[in-house]
Amino acid sequence: MSEPNADVIQQLRDLLGEKGVRCDPNDVMPDIIVKPASTAEVSGVLKICNAAGQALVPLGGKTGLAGGHFATGDEIGLSLERMNAIEEIDEHNRTMTVQAGCILQVAVEAAEEKDLLFPLDFGARGSATVGGNLATNAGGNMVIRYGMTRDMVLGLEVVLADGTVITSLNKLLKNNTGYDLKHWFIGAEGTLGVITRAVLRLRPLPRSENTALLAVDTFSHVGDLLRWLDARTAGTLSSFEVMWPSYYEFITREGYQHTPPLPHGSGYYVLVETLGADPESDAARFEEVLGGALEEGLVMDAVICQSEKERNALWEIRDDVLELFNLGPIITYDISVTLDRMEAFVAEVQAQMDARRNPVCVIFGHLGDCNLHVILGASDAADFDYDELQGILYGTVKRFDGSVSAEHGIGVLKREQLPMSRSADELHLMMGMKNMLDPKNILNPNKIFTAEDVSAA
Amino acid sequence: MSEPNADVIQQLRDLLGEKGVRCDPNDVMPDIIVKPASTAEVSGVLKICNAAGQALVPLGGKTGLAGGHFATGDEIGLSLERMNAIEEIDEHNRTMTVQAGCILQVAVEAAEEKDLLFPLDFGARGSATVGGNLATNAGGNMVIRYGMTRDMVLGLEVVLADGTVITSLNKLLKNNTGYDLKHWFIGAEGTLGVITRAVLRLRPLPRSENTALLAVDTFSHVGDLLRWLDARTAGTLSSFEVMWPSYYEFITREGYQHTPPLPHGSGYYVLVETLGADPESDAARFEEVLGGALEEGLVMDAVICQSEKERNALWEIRDDVLELFNLGPIITYDISVTLDRMEAFVAEVQAQMDARRNPVCVIFGHLGDCNLHVILGASDAADFDYDELQGILYGTVKRFDGSVSAEHGIGVLKREQLPMSRSADELHLMMGMKNMLDPKNILNPNKIFTAEDVSAA
Repeated sequence: MSEPNADVIQQLRDLLGEKGVRCDPNDVMPDIIVKPASTAEVSGVLKICNAAGQALVPLGGKTGLAGGHFATGDEIGLSLERMNAIEEIDEHNRTMTVQAGCILQVAVEAAEEKDLLFPLDFGARGSATVGGNLATNAGGNMVIRYGMTRDMVLGLEVVLADGTVITSLNKLLKNNTGYDLKHWFIGAEGTLGVITRAVLRLRPLPRSENTALLAVDTFSHVGDLLRWLDARTAGTLSSFEVMWPSYYEFITREGYQHTPPLPHGSGYYVLVETLGADPESDAARFEEVLGGALEEGLVMDAVICQSEKERNALWEIRDDVLELFNLGPIITYDISVTLDRMEAFVAEVQAQMDARRNPVCVIFGHLGDCNLHVILGASDAADFDYDELQGILYGTVKRFDGSVSAEHGIGVLKREQLPMSRSADELHLMMGMKNMLDPKNILNPNKIFTAEDVSAA
Repeated sequence: MSEPNADVIQQLRDLLGEKGVRCDPNDVMPDIIVKPASTAEVSGVLKICNAAGQALVPLGGKTGLAGGHFATGDEIGLSLERMNAIEEIDEHNRTMTVQAGCILQVAVEAAEEKDLLFPLDFGARGSATVGGNLATNAGGNMVIRYGMTRDMVLGLEVVLADGTVITSLNKLLKNNTGYDLKHWFIGAEGTLGVITRAVLRLRPLPRSENTALLAVDTFSHVGDLLRWLDARTAGTLSSFEVMWPSYYEFITREGYQHTPPLPHGSGYYVLVETLGADPESDAARFEEVLGGALEEGLVMDAVICQSEKERNALWEIRDDVLELFNLGPIITYDISVTLDRMEAFVAEVQAQMDARRNPVCVIFGHLGDCNLHVILGASDAADFDYDELQGILYGTVKRFDGSVSAEHGIGVLKREQLPMSRSADELHLMMGMKNMLDPKNILNPNKIFTAEDVSAA
């Protein structure tokens, strides 16, 4: 990679001091990382870089799967790790004001201590930052009930490319005063501004959790079950996770660490969870509703968790995604398809994989949100062909009008596929926004769009 | 008002035919109204108008309270009333695709027939259009649970000022592929593009409704009650409407049409409603939770509705806002203040009104959303002073860091107050967007910002 401008680095050292500039040689991410400790310092950094045309990569927990935190040339890294304070938990208004560098799990636990819930949860909770969650509009395990990160934000502070600080730390649930600027920046992957602080909406902490694993015979019944449960659990259904046998039966195989709560041999394995308010009556209702689903023939078999230990064991099966890397070289995909076309989509991907030698094709996902994680690869490395697998997966997503990125964003790794899910007019409009807000293209260049496409737009 | 360009009118007649152009002389709204019947026709209208610099006012149900549908010069009206079809209700994916001119109530009832809920509801449901709801990001009676209109939208079709059609009719709950364009246009009051179609997210139709009116002695208990109920009703609390005695005791006064369900003399009257899934157990739970609130001293008295008739009677009291016009000349305000400062805010407004002759000061609102409707006026017309009342209300909102528009938008009527709730930098950013998307300022000019401010930005 080429070198950042030495004069710029000196100016940044002068602004931030020795603690504020670090060199961290790295193959993929920027070598030089600046670590401002306040919004004013972020603004100062951007003013210097904008004047010099020095590009930056905003860095959160670096847990994203789309390469949004990669360097593509001589970018400097802009880490928000020193801006990690929880500035306020307002129990009265049920909001939380946090700095962007705050680790998600820290924020969640701080809310819990006040008997409140910040309903964002996924595997990387211990290293992902709230700023990164906002920049990528992170999803996770409770989207069906609480929405994406976007839906949990009331206010935002953003520093624009030229250093202008836009402080919109709104705490009001209703505020229709002009354009809702926060939505321009949430999910923009750091390409339009640097998020420095946010006001998050908190919810009452649930007082009961009811979790079950269900065996379902057909995909049609999976869809029916989702609607059936959702209608009967009155807004408390918070997870509806589906594991295909390729996932469940591999992760609970004999000799590996998980005991299968349900025997192998079913069509689908569905993890459902409701979060309620009254442990006793919620448990009774949950059992009654699942009993009804059994009677209706929507469910063939069910295990209801009787303890936190059983619940954790179930979620560990769902979350043991890293074990899939033992299947051989694989690619993990994060896509969406509408429910009515999902079965045919999966069949078409499967058929193409079946025609290959030593195929790996594993599927699971947040089905309540139309979101599938598809794992394709080969059990023998000699049969692994990246381009062919990309062609199989994205070709099928395109034919089924799906989304090439459900929850992980575009970054650099899905840039080529973006036009499959967005029209030329949509992309042109997006790039117009990029050019308006960041005319020198210093903010996370080459993410979502190439620098060439942006300058030609 | 000045006249629209005659040559433009002739071109529009040629495009749309006689049915598509009407003259409807009017003091406030545009005289000439074009009525395209398809997205292609909307695009054609905008191309003609953009080429000629002819301004337009997009028209929905014309029920907005901020004057977003007023003409400010020689604008032509662009009515979407002929684009009123429900194109699809997708029961499998629980979405609804509607044209912008569809009346809200028609959409809600069509969803209900399929056992699904479109959770947007407010007084003007019978004449407001979905397009207008989207353009203003309408709120209403269930925001605490389901959010604003923005939160119910999955996909959008918009025609830009130059006639470009952006069709993003996404049906997926999760779709992180580039900037989420729909949020640029929702709540932009028709100033950035004309919304022609939308994909709306539907929910399971609730199977139980439980409604009560509660008497509460202090404001501190009102806030406690909100949090207490929300934590114990597990996501089913859908309304938390508070009436101050000035509202409740006037609307249920002797000799007028409503019987007071609770006697006069309390500090606050709170209408709460939960929407659930199981009529029998939900009713028992609702009673138990309210019983707990009585025991805790949060509630002094309660009436639980035992029938749909009693429920309707209660909502009719809450919704009988037009009766307030019999108090004398009044101004109705729609503002937000955070819960922790709301009591002091109301006291300060009240004190200023008490110092006036023949004051009218009535307060009620969607308290779960921090949203108050404040009615100020004078029982004797001689004592009504518009400017002074505006000064009292907005001066206090500004001191309490509130929002000058919670759910009705800015339009022309709140333009002057917008800078109280938004910083100069925020406004500059918004106007940059306006200039980018509508460089000739033909789309609803003088709404949110004056044309002069936009061209100077």
